[in-house]
Amino acid sequence: MRILVTGGAGFLGGHVASHLLDAGHEVAVHDMAVADGPHLRGVRSIRGSLLDQESLVSACGGVEAICHLGGVGDVIVAGKDPGLAAAANVVGTANVVAAAREAGVARIVYASTWEVYGDPRYQPLDEDHPCAPDHPYNITKFAGECLALAADRLGGVPTVALRLGTAYGLRMRPNSVFSRFIQAASRREPITIQGTGLQSRQFTHARDVARGFRLALESDLRCTAINLVAEETVTIRALAEMVAARFPTEIRFTEARAGDIHPSTVDSSRAHRLLGWRAEVPFDVGLAEMMDEVARGA
Amino acid sequence: MRILVTGGAGFLGGHVASHLLDAGHEVAVHDMAVADGPHLRGVRSIRGSLLDQESLVSACGGVEAICHLGGVGDVIVAGKDPGLAAAANVVGTANVVAAAREAGVARIVYASTWEVYGDPRYQPLDEDHPCAPDHPYNITKFAGECLALAADRLGGVPTVALRLGTAYGLRMRPNSVFSRFIQAASRREPITIQGTGLQSRQFTHARDVARGFRLALESDLRCTAINLVAEETVTIRALAEMVAARFPTEIRFTEARAGDIHPSTVDSSRAHRLLGWRAEVPFDVGLAEMMDEVARGA
Repeated sequence: MRILVTGGAGFLGGHVASHLLDAGHEVAVHDMAVADGPHLRGVRSIRGSLLDQESLVSACGGVEAICHLGGVGDVIVAGKDPGLAAAANVVGTANVVAAAREAGVARIVYASTWEVYGDPRYQPLDEDHPCAPDHPYNITKFAGECLALAADRLGGVPTVALRLGTAYGLRMRPNSVFSRFIQAASRREPITIQGTGLQSRQFTHARDVARGFRLALESDLRCTAINLVAEETVTIRALAEMVAARFPTEIRFTEARAGDIHPSTVDSSRAHRLLGWRAEVPFDVGLAEMMDEVARGA
Repeated sequence: MRILVTGGAGFLGGHVASHLLDAGHEVAVHDMAVADGPHLRGVRSIRGSLLDQESLVSACGGVEAICHLGGVGDVIVAGKDPGLAAAANVVGTANVVAAAREAGVARIVYASTWEVYGDPRYQPLDEDHPCAPDHPYNITKFAGECLALAADRLGGVPTVALRLGTAYGLRMRPNSVFSRFIQAASRREPITIQGTGLQSRQFTHARDVARGFRLALESDLRCTAINLVAEETVTIRALAEMVAARFPTEIRFTEARAGDIHPSTVDSSRAHRLLGWRAEVPFDVGLAEMMDEVARGA
């Protein structure tokens, strides 16, 4: 299949592009940055902004499916500049959807987030749980999801939204909690946890996410949102302890961030039922891989 | 109070500005269009786009409160150009919120819509009902509401979102169902109803909406959304019959619009409890006023 991956020069988009290449697809990447690196050997790199409709329409030429991961994926950046997040994630998604329709693209898979649910009314969170996004990041991701699914429902391109767990893996951005902990510990500097560290996450490996995108591309589902979140639950404190077990260092605690997300459990049985998807990378394996790389580099 | 009304050159914003003027407030209007007309005598008209942060910051200088009604308020325009709706309603709102904060504005009242609820899970719809927006208009209005309330919660400007009923009154835009029916009938042309005409609405008079804005401005509420919807329920068919009773003509039926909104009942007891608000303009009085004006002009 000829597939366009928006945001494919970034962390998660790069994993999706790389996985699709390995599966034998022809992959182009649309991104502000150049898509390069050994994992992207063979992709066609198209530089452009999600706000430049012409570059999107031209990138969609001859494309059969789009994995739309472009936009502001960094929660901290979105919190500091909600207008930027709104432009990239909402206007940008409207533009991708319009360009896809114009170019006759047959399918869109949209990168949404488990964070759209907001404060849980019940747990585990399934796809029927009300969405009450509460931070510029998840508000703008949810609006993008709604726009893409509404366009499908109103006669547009068949679309699936994947509500992703917090993804981790090689090539994460340096301000992620993983990168910060591993970098600090590898230099024998203390690891700093904001809050108690007891907030838990269902960290989902980027390779598992990438496989979910491929399965959604190959399905004939449409007009639907699906949780794509690993079952395993890990606290930030446990993550810190696992890092400090490999690179011995001190663990410190500071004040919690305002608007930090409450722990909640997400149910992905729908992904298993409809896509045959289950997370396959155990957390300790995924984490060890990241630490191995830093150890090799050090 | 010195109040800035965004979108005040338009239909609903104009009613809000006019009501605030009558109540003795000092009113400036920020809008792409010039704010004029007899109902806006005394306002300061500032022309500018919601996407031009500089014009917003300058418009906010010395302002104590903002009524934010600017953006794409026309459902049909939003449906045709979701990217435009996303820019005006989501990025635009992020910009207004940022400008308000920078200028030290003490309060924002945001124009949201009852349409944020989507398909009802129960009725009548109260503010705790899940929001599941399903059309570019309500999706982008909901994202704007979430951004404004999140900014307040994260330490920003105190904000109230009013989820407005479908507003009607003098100076409605010409493609509204009211204007279309009255104009057609006054020329003795047939009135055309899309669908069965049995879809009902709680039409809320623009003067009642304007009073709700003033009450929210004068309150000390924050971080909250409140339904502002008249109790009276009217079907489109009853509206057509009332118009045809005044200007005798034929009523015709055509196919329903794709994505048309399902009838649902909205509960505004919270507005009564927290703001002392209740709709006061009976539907037949508000409608007669509009028909009188057309009769005078004809």
